[in-house]
Order: sequence, then structure tokens, then C-alpha cells
Amino acid sequence: MSTSRLEAFSDGVFAIAITLLIFNIKTPTDTSHLLASLLNLWPSYLAYVISFLLIGLLWANHHVMFEHIIQSDRLLMFVNTLLLMVVAFIPFTSSVLASAFRNGAGESVAIALYGGTLALGVLCFNWIWSHAYRAKLMDDHVTTERAQRMTRRILFGPISYGLGALLGFFLPVVGVVVFGALILFYWLPIPQRNSAGEKVGAR
Amino acid sequence: MSTSRLEAFSDGVFAIAITLLIFNIKTPTDTSHLLASLLNLWPSYLAYVISFLLIGLLWANHHVMFEHIIQSDRLLMFVNTLLLMVVAFIPFTSSVLASAFRNGAGESVAIALYGGTLALGVLCFNWIWSHAYRAKLMDDHVTTERAQRMTRRILFGPISYGLGALLGFFLPVVGVVVFGALILFYWLPIPQRNSAGEKVGAR
Amino acid sequence: MSTSRLEAFSDGVFAIAITLLIFNIKTPTDTSHLLASLLNLWPSYLAYVISFLLIGLLWANHHVMFEHIIQSDRLLMFVNTLLLMVVAFIPFTSSVLASAFRNGAGESVAIALYGGTLALGVLCFNWIWSHAYRAKLMDDHVTTERAQRMTRRILFGPISYGLGALLGFFLPVVGVVVFGALILFYWLPIPQRNSAGEKVGAR
Amino acid sequence: MSTSRLEAFSDGVFAIAITLLIFNIKTPTDTSHLLASLLNLWPSYLAYVISFLLIGLLWANHHVMFEHIIQSDRLLMFVNTLLLMVVAFIPFTSSVLASAFRNGAGESVAIALYGGTLALGVLCFNWIWSHAYRAKLMDDHVTTERAQRMTRRILFGPISYGLGALLGFFLPVVGVVVFGALILFYWLPIPQRNSAGEKVGAR
Repeated sequence: MSTSRLEAFSDGVFAIAITLLIFNIKTPTDTSHLLASLLNLWPSYLAYVISFLLIGLLWANHHVMFEHIIQSDRLLMFVNTLLLMVVAFIPFTSSVLASAFRNGAGESVAIALYGGTLALGVLCFNWIWSHAYRAKLMDDHVTTERAQRMTRRILFGPISYGLGALLGFFLPVVGVVVFGALILFYWLPIPQRNSAGEKVGAR
Repeated sequence: MSTSRLEAFSDGVFAIAITLLIFNIKTPTDTSHLLASLLNLWPSYLAYVISFLLIGLLWANHHVMFEHIIQSDRLLMFVNTLLLMVVAFIPFTSSVLASAFRNGAGESVAIALYGGTLALGVLCFNWIWSHAYRAKLMDDHVTTERAQRMTRRILFGPISYGLGALLGFFLPVVGVVVFGALILFYWLPIPQRNSAGEKVGAR
Repeated sequence: MSTSRLEAFSDGVFAIAITLLIFNIKTPTDTSHLLASLLNLWPSYLAYVISFLLIGLLWANHHVMFEHIIQSDRLLMFVNTLLLMVVAFIPFTSSVLASAFRNGAGESVAIALYGGTLALGVLCFNWIWSHAYRAKLMDDHVTTERAQRMTRRILFGPISYGLGALLGFFLPVVGVVVFGALILFYWLPIPQRNSAGEKVGAR
Repeated sequence: MSTSRLEAFSDGVFAIAITLLIFNIKTPTDTSHLLASLLNLWPSYLAYVISFLLIGLLWANHHVMFEHIIQSDRLLMFVNTLLLMVVAFIPFTSSVLASAFRNGAGESVAIALYGGTLALGVLCFNWIWSHAYRAKLMDDHVTTERAQRMTRRILFGPISYGLGALLGFFLPVVGVVVFGALILFYWLPIPQRNSAGEKVGAR
């Protein structure tokens, strides 16, 4: 089977999950001191921006990955569903994160939940990639060496997010900063460009 | 008419229904004992995982089916709409299921609703397949024998889900286990591979 | 400009609006008399089924129309946006309808709102079709005669829905029945088949 | 990388954000004076219509822009994600706007938020366009002169929306009128037609 409908279905889930993030920002019911009420929602805005960039990043990585994977089998569809299950879970973890920071209670747990979910998502990426490699679902242009570089790059993800979650468990604010930095780092990957191969780097 | 827009529209409904499942997990308002509050939501997580895998499975089956069906007519569009109506109903039945298990009341009814909806969905699949076969909307490569194997395989669905719902009505926990097992069984169909034909099996 | 992204965007809005209908069915908070609570929601189920078939029908008609319209201009995009605005409004009118019947108050107004919205949607269909005809955005195979038959068929819509709304304003239950009958009539258009041309009829 | 999945993902976000606007219109719980209750919601309807036309317009512009941009790189995906972040934020600003006008308090702040978000979105459009021009991601048919005309046209956006927001901060009702007028002006751009080039104008 070709991967076109798998990509369309995944695009749909990514697009919905990313757009649903806005529901975590509740309109103030009392608008008499609107500016203050709006400013008071800062943890929600922060969670919105971080989670939006995160899901956008996961989508971009999914996109790059399926530039190389050109065929689909039953297991690939299953693992892809697991990945989407994690992606669709992010609006919840994002909402918990914003709640904890707004209430000033439970930040450690919230950040561990957020980071743990993230690490799980990256594990799914690993599984998809290694299965596609083994089951020969990839484009012929993907050499063993390039596939391994990709594997190393993907592996770096759960380790760093795991460390961020661990750090954030003890120092919640640091955890948020680490997540933000990692997301931006992965979005604008100047050193990754070479290691991810010409296709990604040049274009 | 070709089936491309029918597939795109269906992909959209599947993707939205699967992503909306997350709304059934409510963010705890009080985050002072966040870990306990989060653990307390276990029926919601379970319902999320089962229903996500279920809708993902229905999508995968829809995808496989429309690899074979290459043309569309008015009745096919109508029955497909009925199928999507059932799919979009799953977030509701899933939410009722989680509520009943959280409250410790009404589990039998909830599981009968869940299983009944599922059986209805599989009936729609049957209708789509048999109509497409009779109205000659299929690819020429689909032989009578293969179509009948598919029919037998699809028929097995409502019967087993119906039995699961009946069993679950008397022993709710067993019902949940049966649904979970059936969903996994259909996702990774080692014996089905041969009977569903080379196209599905090999790839 | 080609119509492919216009169709993709429209498919998205149709798919989301149709799936959001499920939010109008609220999970009972108390599950101790679950069967009774679920049966009590019958106006919501009815509104769900009618509105689902309705939006599915509007999508099917949009699909048929854009089998013929092969190019897009600025005005077409604008009127299509108006149509989508009406489609996305249906979950609201559907929710009002269910509320009114559940409360046993305001049924006349609710049904007039529902029917009026519907008539508006069909007017947008008319506008799209007549504009596409005048601006020569159609496939060459669409003859003047066929375009006029389509126009007559589409015109029949707002008149009948308008009559349904008027009737429903005085006899709400009759209005619901009329809407249901009209939707089914348009879904399975045995007499329309000939008048809508071979393309629709044969396939 | 080609732009097809970027367009599909963006179409998804636009379609969801535009459809979610309906959630800002709450069904009246008491339906005994339904007509009065429905009429009372006029600020919500107004916000719905304006925001629907606005997101539809942004989608149409995105569509026109990506008729010219034919390749994608990492930065383009990032800035496009920023644009989508702004688009998905509009249902929130729209809801705040309707709340403020319904409550008769906070209109100035609400309109500044609405206009500011809009200006931000147009800035993202500028960034996408200028980056695509510099990074040579465009179709060869886009001449320097045409690209500059487009740039001028796009630049006009944030300036006029910024002025509208400023004006609206002091005279809220005027701000709403200005936004409405600008949205309609951009939808039906008779003088723009020539300056935006034949592709947009003729078709």
C-alpha cells in the first residue's frame, strides 16, 4: 500500500490536535478588567506557544520521515496510530501544565507528565523508522549510513526530553525552559543539517 | 465518480473523531494533589487507548477496503455517511464507558452501548463491501473468491463484538478485556494475512 | 486556479462540522440509572441523525457540483466560504433544536432557525452554480441544458426547505418529519437520476 | 521538499479553526423565550461572521501564495507554523470580542487584541513571502516586479489592520466596522486585481 492516505490521516490528526490547543485558553467571563484578566492567563499562552511549536515540529519530522518511507504495511499503520495517540494526548498534558503553573501547585508532576509523553512520542518515531528500515519500506535512495544517522538523531530526542522531564521534576521552571530550548533547537537544526543528509539540508 | 474525495472526507471524519477522544479526559481543576488526581482518571485513559486503537483500526480497514473499491455511486456515499455517523458516535460511547467505570455504576449498560455501536459500524462495513461488489465498483483484480473471503472476515466482526457486548453486559470488566483483545487481534491479524489476499498480506 | 485546494479545504470544514455534532449529546453525569438517562436523550439522537445526514448530503452535493466546476476564481472562493459558514452553523441550529424539544419549549422558533439556515445554504449552492456557469468555470461537457436542469433541481431545495420551516413553525413535529423526508429524498434521488444527467445517474 | 503536505496540513488547521468559531455561540439553556434569547446573542453572530470571513480570507491568500511557492524548506515550515499559530488563536480573540460587546465592558482591549493578532498574522505572511523569494522557493514565472507588487500589497495589510486596532481602541464600534470593511475589501479586490498579476486577476 502507498503511504498517501496514511499521510492524509496523520496530517488530519496533527492539524486537529494543534488547533485544539486553543481550547486550553478560556475566555474570561468577566470583562470589566479585561486587560488584567488577559495578562493573568500567561501560563496558558506559554503552554499554547510551546505545545504549538512542539506539535508543529512533530508534524515536520513526520513529513521528513515519510519523504523517505514510500510504502506502508499493517505494523507501520499500527505504530503510526500509537504515535498519533501520543500527539492527540498533548493538548491534555499542555492543559495540565498550564493549570499547575496558574495554581502554583503540582508543577513537578505536570512537567514530568509533559516530558514523559514527549519521550513516548519520540520512541514511536524510532519504532516507525527502524521498522520501515527493516521491512524495506523505504526509498532506494536511503543508504544504510543515512538511515543510521537518522536513527542516532532520533535517539537523541527521548534522551534529552527525558533529562528535561527529570530536571523539570525538581526545578519546574528550568524544565519549561529546557523544553522550549529543545523545541527551538530541533526546529532550526543548523548542525543537524549536514547529518540529516542533503535532502533535508539543501531544501 | 472516483473515490478520492470520499476518501478525503472520510479521512477527515476519522481523524477528527479520533482526536476528539482527548476531550473525554478532563484536566483536574485542583492541582494540589496532582499525581493522585491524574491516577484517579485511569478509566478515562483506558477508554482513550481502547477507543483510539478502535477508530484507528476502523480507519485502517476503511483504507484497505478502498484500495479495492475504485468507483463511487450515490448509495455508496450514503452508506459511507452512515458508517461515519457511527464512527463519530464513538467518542460519546467512550465517554459514557469511562463515566460508568469512574462512578462504579451503569457499567453493563455502558458496555452494551459501546459494543452495540461497534457492531453497527461493522454492519456498515459489510453493506459497503457487498454493495460495491454487486454494483461492480471494484478493481478488476478483486476476484469473487477474494471478495467472499473478505466478506467472511468482515462478518466475523459483528458476531464477535456482539458476543463481547453480551458478555460485557453481565461481566463488564470481561467485556472491556474482550473488546481490547478483539481490537488488538484485528490490528495484528497474523492468520488473516493469508485469507485477506496477497495485497494486504505482503504489504 | 484549480479547485483542488478549495475542495480539500471544504472537505475539511464539512468533516469537522459533521463530527462536532456529537458534542451536542452530553454524557450523563449520573450513571446510576444509565439506561433511563440515555433514553432520555432521544431528541439529541434524533437531531444528531438528521443533521449528520444533512451535512453528509450537502457534502455529497458539493462533491457532485465540483465534478463539473473545474476552475476557481475569487468570487467562487468567497461564495464557497459563505456556504461553509452556513454548514459550520448547523451544529448550533441542531443543538438549539434538540434543546427546544428536550425542554418542550421554543420548538417553533428552533425549527424555523433550522429550516432558515438550510434554505440559506441552498441559496449559496445556487449562487456557486450560476456564477460558475456564467464565469465559464465549468467542464466543457456541461451543456446549457444540463446546467439548467441542475439549476431547477437546486432551486427546488430552498423552496421545499422553506415550506418545511414554515410548516414546522406551526407544527414543530411535522417540520422535523418534513426535514427528515426531504433529506432522505435528496439522498436517494431515484427520479432525479435522469434529470441530473448521466454522470450522476450512472455512477 | 514539495509543498503538498504543507498545504494539506495548513488546510486542515484553517478548516478546523474556522469551524471551531461556532463554539463561541452558546446554545441558550432556557428555551422558553427562545427568540429573545437567540436575538440576544447578536454580538456572537457578528463575531462569527467577521471571523469566518477573516479566516476564509487568510486561507484564500495562503492558497494564492502557495500557487507561486513550489518548494519548501525548514524555515518556511517554521514560519508557516507561526502563521497557523496565529490563525488558531483567532477563535479565542473572536470569543473575547463577543464577550466584551455582550457584557458592554472591555471592548477597547478586546478590539486591540483582535487587531493585534491580525497584524501578527499578516507579518507572518510577509515573512513567508520574502523568505520564499530570497530562498528561491518560487515558481520561475514569478518575476521580481510581480513579487514586489505582492510585497507592497501584503505590507498594506498590517498597517491598515494596525490602524483599525488603534482606532478601535478608542472607538470600539468603529474598529469593528473597519475590520469588516477591510475583510470585505480584501475579499473582493477590484483594484488589486491588476496589481496582483494576471494569474490572480484573470482567474
